[in-house]
This record gives sequence, C-alpha cells and structure tokens, in this order.
Amino acid sequence: MPNADDHDLRHAVLRANRMIPEAGLAALTWGNVSGVDRAAGIYLIKPSGVAYPELTADLLVPVDLETGRVVSGRLKPSVDSETHRAFYLRWPEIGGITHTHSTHAVAFAQARRDVPVLGTTHADTFSGPVRVTRDLTPAECERDYEFNTARAVIELIGDDALATPAALAAHHGPFTWARDAVKSVETAIVCEAVAEMALKTLALNPAASAPQWLLDRHFTRKHGAGAYYGNDLGAATGA
Amino acid sequence: MPNADDHDLRHAVLRANRMIPEAGLAALTWGNVSGVDRAAGIYLIKPSGVAYPELTADLLVPVDLETGRVVSGRLKPSVDSETHRAFYLRWPEIGGITHTHSTHAVAFAQARRDVPVLGTTHADTFSGPVRVTRDLTPAECERDYEFNTARAVIELIGDDALATPAALAAHHGPFTWARDAVKSVETAIVCEAVAEMALKTLALNPAASAPQWLLDRHFTRKHGAGAYYGNDLGAATGA
Amino acid sequence: MPNADDHDLRHAVLRANRMIPEAGLAALTWGNVSGVDRAAGIYLIKPSGVAYPELTADLLVPVDLETGRVVSGRLKPSVDSETHRAFYLRWPEIGGITHTHSTHAVAFAQARRDVPVLGTTHADTFSGPVRVTRDLTPAECERDYEFNTARAVIELIGDDALATPAALAAHHGPFTWARDAVKSVETAIVCEAVAEMALKTLALNPAASAPQWLLDRHFTRKHGAGAYYGNDLGAATGA
Amino acid sequence: MPNADDHDLRHAVLRANRMIPEAGLAALTWGNVSGVDRAAGIYLIKPSGVAYPELTADLLVPVDLETGRVVSGRLKPSVDSETHRAFYLRWPEIGGITHTHSTHAVAFAQARRDVPVLGTTHADTFSGPVRVTRDLTPAECERDYEFNTARAVIELIGDDALATPAALAAHHGPFTWARDAVKSVETAIVCEAVAEMALKTLALNPAASAPQWLLDRHFTRKHGAGAYYGNDLGAATGA
Repeated sequence: MPNADDHDLRHAVLRANRMIPEAGLAALTWGNVSGVDRAAGIYLIKPSGVAYPELTADLLVPVDLETGRVVSGRLKPSVDSETHRAFYLRWPEIGGITHTHSTHAVAFAQARRDVPVLGTTHADTFSGPVRVTRDLTPAECERDYEFNTARAVIELIGDDALATPAALAAHHGPFTWARDAVKSVETAIVCEAVAEMALKTLALNPAASAPQWLLDRHFTRKHGAGAYYGNDLGAATGA
Repeated sequence: MPNADDHDLRHAVLRANRMIPEAGLAALTWGNVSGVDRAAGIYLIKPSGVAYPELTADLLVPVDLETGRVVSGRLKPSVDSETHRAFYLRWPEIGGITHTHSTHAVAFAQARRDVPVLGTTHADTFSGPVRVTRDLTPAECERDYEFNTARAVIELIGDDALATPAALAAHHGPFTWARDAVKSVETAIVCEAVAEMALKTLALNPAASAPQWLLDRHFTRKHGAGAYYGNDLGAATGA
Repeated sequence: MPNADDHDLRHAVLRANRMIPEAGLAALTWGNVSGVDRAAGIYLIKPSGVAYPELTADLLVPVDLETGRVVSGRLKPSVDSETHRAFYLRWPEIGGITHTHSTHAVAFAQARRDVPVLGTTHADTFSGPVRVTRDLTPAECERDYEFNTARAVIELIGDDALATPAALAAHHGPFTWARDAVKSVETAIVCEAVAEMALKTLALNPAASAPQWLLDRHFTRKHGAGAYYGNDLGAATGA
Repeated sequence: MPNADDHDLRHAVLRANRMIPEAGLAALTWGNVSGVDRAAGIYLIKPSGVAYPELTADLLVPVDLETGRVVSGRLKPSVDSETHRAFYLRWPEIGGITHTHSTHAVAFAQARRDVPVLGTTHADTFSGPVRVTRDLTPAECERDYEFNTARAVIELIGDDALATPAALAAHHGPFTWARDAVKSVETAIVCEAVAEMALKTLALNPAASAPQWLLDRHFTRKHGAGAYYGNDLGAATGA
C-alpha cells in the first residue's frame, strides 16, 4: 500500500472499528469494519479474532479488491472479508462497511422478521424496512459461504445501496454500509437503535405502522436535493 | 445578541444539550435543547446535525422568536427549530424545550399509545398521561411540517403547559418543556423513565392502573401551594 | 448530635446514598437512604430534593426518632422521612433503610404483583416473595401519608423484618432495610436484580416456580446458625 | 503452593474474576471464577463473600483437587467450590470455570428452558443448546448440595465438555468452562449475550429456529481441523 492516502485510511478504519465496542454493538472480538481505497484497489479490514483493545492501525489487513488476497503482512483478515469484498465490487458508491452482532438487530435476524418502518428515527436514515435475507442453501453454506452471504443481501438491496444502507443476514446479524467506514458504523448504531425501538413498539402495539407521507418527509429532510438537515461546520465557522 | 444575560443563557443551553447524551436520551446527533431570552425576543438552539462532543457555546444558534430567522452566525438551527418557536409563542411561562429520541418514549409514540399514569414516579412530575398527538395530515407534512408538529402538541396540552410538561409527537418522539432549558432535560429524563416503567408494568399486568387519590397526593407534594418537597440549598446553607 | 459516633454514621449514610446513582437505582434526586443511631435516638437522612452529586455529609438531616422533628440545621429531610421513622420504631433490629425508584421493582409495584421467588438469587437474600402493599385509602393518603405508607408495609412484614427485608409500596416503589445503611442499599440492589430476572423469567415461562427445598437450602447457606457463606476479611487476614 | 507457575495462575484467576463485574455478569459478591494447576493438583478460587473491588491475588483460595480441602490461608473458598472441583475431576481437558448470576441466563434457568440455538452468535461458541439441568431432589439439596449441582450438569454434558462449554443449573444460573480461567469468563459473556438475544428473538417469533447447515458452518469456522477463524498475534507480529 504505497499510496499517500494509506495513512489516513488506516486511522479512519481503526477509529471506526473502535466505535464498535464503544457503542456497545458487539462483545469480545465480534464485529468488523472495513474501508476501501478505490484508486489503489484495496480495502483495509479488521484482522480475524483480534480483541478491540489490542487493535492498532498497523494490524489492519489490506486485501486486494479483485482477488480477495491479502496484500501484505502475516495476519488473516476477518472471516467475513469476502462478504465485504462482494459489497465493494457490487456497489461502487460505498466506501465503508460494518458488521456487528448488536442485540436487537440480531434478534430480528434470528426471528427472520424485517425491522419495519415505525417512525421517524428509522425514516431519517432508511427509506424502507431493514430486511432479512432468505436462508442460504446447504450448498451455499458449504462453499464460498461468506461470498454467498453477500449475494443474498445484494438480492434484497439491488442497485441503490444508499437508499436503505443496511440488511440482516438471516440468523446472523446486521451489515451496514456508507460512503466511508466511520459513517457505516454510525449506520450500524442507527440500525440497532431502530431495532430496539421496533421490538418495544411491537410489544405495545403488534399492529403498529406509520403514515408514508410522514416517513417520506423525514427521509427527504436529510437526503436528496431538498434536504435541509445538517451544517458544514468547516464552511460555517472557517475563516 | 448584545444583552448581558447572553453569556449565562449560552452556557445553560450548552449544559442542557450535553445532558442529552450523558443521560442516554439520544444517539449520534439526535435531539436538541433550546432556551429562551424573553426580554431579547430570542431563543438559542442546537445547530442542525452537530455531534454533541463538538458542540460549544459559540455554536448555539440564536433565532428570532417572532420571525424564526437566524439572528447571527452562519449555522442553521436544528430542523426542529420551528417546533420550539411555536411552543415559546404559545406558552409564555416556559423557558426551555427539549426534544429527544429516547427509546421507550419513542416506542409509545410509535405505538400511538399514551404513557399512562401507573404510579408515583409519573405523578411526581406529570398531572396526567403523557399523550400522543394525532397523525399529521399529508398537507401538514408537506408544508410547515415542524410548525404543524407543534400545533398538534398544543391541541393536546391547551393552556396549562406546566401541568403535564411533555407530549409525544406521533411516530416521532417526546418533546418536554419547563421554566428553563436544564429543567426541560430533567423532564425528558423523567419522561423516558416513566415510559420504560410503564412498558414493563404493562408486560406484567396489561390492566394496571393507580388510584387517583394517590396520584393527586404525589403531584401536590411537589407542585402548588401545599408543596413540601425540596430545599433551597442556597438559602439553607448560605451565611 | 454531640456523640462520638456521629462522624462515622454521617460518612456511612453519605456513602450509602451515593451508591443509589452508582448502582443505577434512581435518576435525578429520586431515592433516599437513612441510618440510625439508637443510643442518640436520632437518624440521619438525605435532605429533600438534593441531587446526589451535590450531597455532602454535612447536608444529611438529623431527625429525632421519637418526634420526627429535625434536630439541627435548616434543611428539610426527605419527604419520605416519616416512612423511615415508622420502620425504625417498629423494628429495633434494623439500622438502615433505603428507598429507590429502580425500574423493575417499580414495575412490579405498579402492576401490583409480588416479586415471586423463582430462584436462588432471590432465595440468597429473601426468605419469601417481595410483596406489594395494599392500596392506601383516600383518608390514608390525605393525612400522614408517609407514615401510613410504612404502616401498610408493616402489615405485610410483621415481626421478622430481616427474613425478607424488602417490600414494594403499591404504585410507588421498593423500600429495603438492613442492619446498617450500606447493607440496606445492597438489599435494594438485590431487590432490583431479582425483579428484573423475575420479569424476564415470566416472559419465558408464565408458570415458573422453584422447589421449596432448593430455596431453603440457599437461604440457610447465608442465614442462621448453619450458614457457611462469606468470610471475615479482617479476622482472616489480620495480624 | 510452592511451584513456579503459581504466580502466573494467581494473576490469571484474579484477572478472570475481575472480568465478572466489568462485563456486568453479576452484582455485589455474586459469581466466582477458578483456574486449575493440574500438575500441582490444586485449583485457585475466589474466596466466599468477598466484593470484587477488594479481591487481590493473595486472597484467592488454593483448594486440593482430590480432597476439596483448603491448602493454605484462613479464608474459606466460594460456597460453590465443590461444584468447580467436580467439574475438574470429571473433565481433564478444562482449565478454568466461571459461575455468574447474569440476568438473561438466570431467566432461562429460572424458566427451566434451554437457550435454543437461534443463530450464528450462538453456534460460533456452542455446538448445541445451552441446557438446563433437572431439579435436584430434596436429598441432593440436603447433603453435598454443591457437588450434586455439578453431577446434574455432568449428566447433561457427558464426555465432550468443550463442545458446548456451558449449562444452566435449574433455578440458579450459568456455569461455563474452558481451557483456562479467562476463556471461561469469555464463554460466560457469550452465554449471557446469546440468552439475551434468544429471549428477544422469541418475543418476536416464538417459533424461531435456524437451519442446521448454517449452524454447523459457523461452529466449524472456529472449531476443529478446518477452522479458519482467528490469528496468533504473537506469531504473526513477532520478530
């Protein structure tokens, strides 16, 4: 990885991985985040089985986007590396991917229920439900399991990866993606929060739903040409 | 904002906003608190989309109470600014407003169920249920959405804003208000706590209710002419 | 409070009160702990409405055990002071009392369901269910409300206060007691933990129960003549 | 304990015990971890009733594996010491044992329901459900209670202790074991996490289950001859 951007990407991916335990999205060594350098054709991903407190920028594993092979170093990438690679190949607009085992998102994945759109917290980030994949077949589990996991997600999502940048691998857990690694973890935080809210909403009202015009309003407050949410702190406060 | 009180108000509103993540009432940039200077005709509110750790007193946005226009600076106020403004205009006795996406209050808002008065924790702060608004119409969502959100709350609350200083915007989340900004966040903490207690109470006993005479006793321990709760630390310990 | 033990009691009661927010048993100013000096005929209790971070040993309020009057200082005691006083008068073997608004214990109090004995965590501390009082009458709420709250608890508990040192005031929350103030907070921690476990057990199995011989075994491991739990660290490691 | 390994084992067992409160697996003095020195025929275990903040390496109690007698010092071992001893005697491949009162695992134990295998988080660590023991008889509770608790667990587990290294003592709580003390606490963390996920999954879908071929795939990613999870940081980064 000789290019000049490598230092920045390493630190962004390290920071993104550290957000996983800080946000309570996974215990022990669970979960992983990657970030891609499209120009170099390489993504950096958490090494397999390393505890978060021991993770350093140097330990992140560079993987070749085309071949899936480790570019340098002696560490193996996360076992989910091929899932990340398949997403990067399919969706050129994404720059970072997060996988967690956050409790409520996993509960929906294990129950094989989509996280329904029940309110504005959900609609602020996702244009529709956070859906659960179909079960993989025995053959898909037997061979290229991790790549096939990505295929089942891609079947659900289609072309517009950033409209609803999350899905639940059935019986497994959430994958989220975004323009960069840190944003993909923020999306994982939202995914867990709306899953928890949905589970508790359904306990109070199993028939809960929300009017589409309200959801559309919230999604378009934050996304698209008419968005009016947010500030550019640098531009606003800069000299 | 040239008046002498500005410095104190800025720091109170900053402190109030920081209480949101400290109390676990919202993730990422969610939620917002404002405080009003009635004499100056201005309220200070969190800027849109700024993360709490990056928030400083200088970044708070001054908004004109009559026009809703930003008085100074380059930052946009919270997208919910017009909801705050409508509350300040309607209720002259309030000095601070808080909006959060706290989990259990959102669950009731998404379920479109009022938080019922099931015990003294609730009655110590709220004279009745924390109610959910009606759904907004498509037209109300299309135009002046945030102002219309406030109107639906005001329809529920009427004149006596401090009797039950909270409401749930349907499918959205809680708004709370009080005599000042910090107290409005404390009310948001109570709102979330009683929503969690209510959800768990209803799981144990779907028909739970509480005798009105007990609730009245607790509300009047803390509020009105006969209140006997609390101390004035300054008066009690001062020289 | 001129006697020599006052300094130690003040610091024990301060430490006990600080355990309330540390253990997550109450938000804001909720909850209160007291400790009694039987020789002096005085108990020290948290002042009304003071936030835990502002509480100091000097601010604790000394109350006369016979009359309920404040012995010195300008602060009012907790509004629940008369409940504490009634317990001290009824049970000479207790030295400390804790009241909290912990979430799951309150849920049982609001649901008017006893916390059943479903396992050894419960039986290690309590010889039977943590019971909910009857509702107070309008007259009992109207006059001497806090003293009457204690009376309803005493009706449930009878003579042996330390066999099951906790009860839930209906629609209100838990009171616990012990030989000293710190131990009464530890009992409040157990009360909340077993309430949470019970709520979740009942969600999995509404008919859950436990064999009496197992519960007896656990209670007697820790209590009574045959107890074999625990160490006296001072004796065991001292010179 | 004169052998050279004693210092390392003491510090590993101390660290393992401290992980209990850090991971939120038990309150107050609840829970205990031990680690064994097979060559010396001794295991070190938490002393009975000592709070975690007061625990030091010196206070850990050495117990003779054959006789169950304390080898040195004046402190009594955990009341559950005989349960640990029975496991060490039965399974020569294990090196550490953890007992906790973690909330969700206890809920399953109290409900007398096995924690079912509903997803990959579970299958990554456990080859099958985390099962609940039968109830002990009155005679088994009356005499050698703690040893009999182990016998009921051993009946469930059989020879292959490391295939599913956890069980729930009915109405009591989880025991987990592993090749060493720290790993046994990590297994207790997984046990609690999958119990919480299972409880919430069952709330969303009481009939939830997972395809066996997916579970097998995950278990074998981490265990056995074909495992490809994890890195040896020392080997990978060492000189």
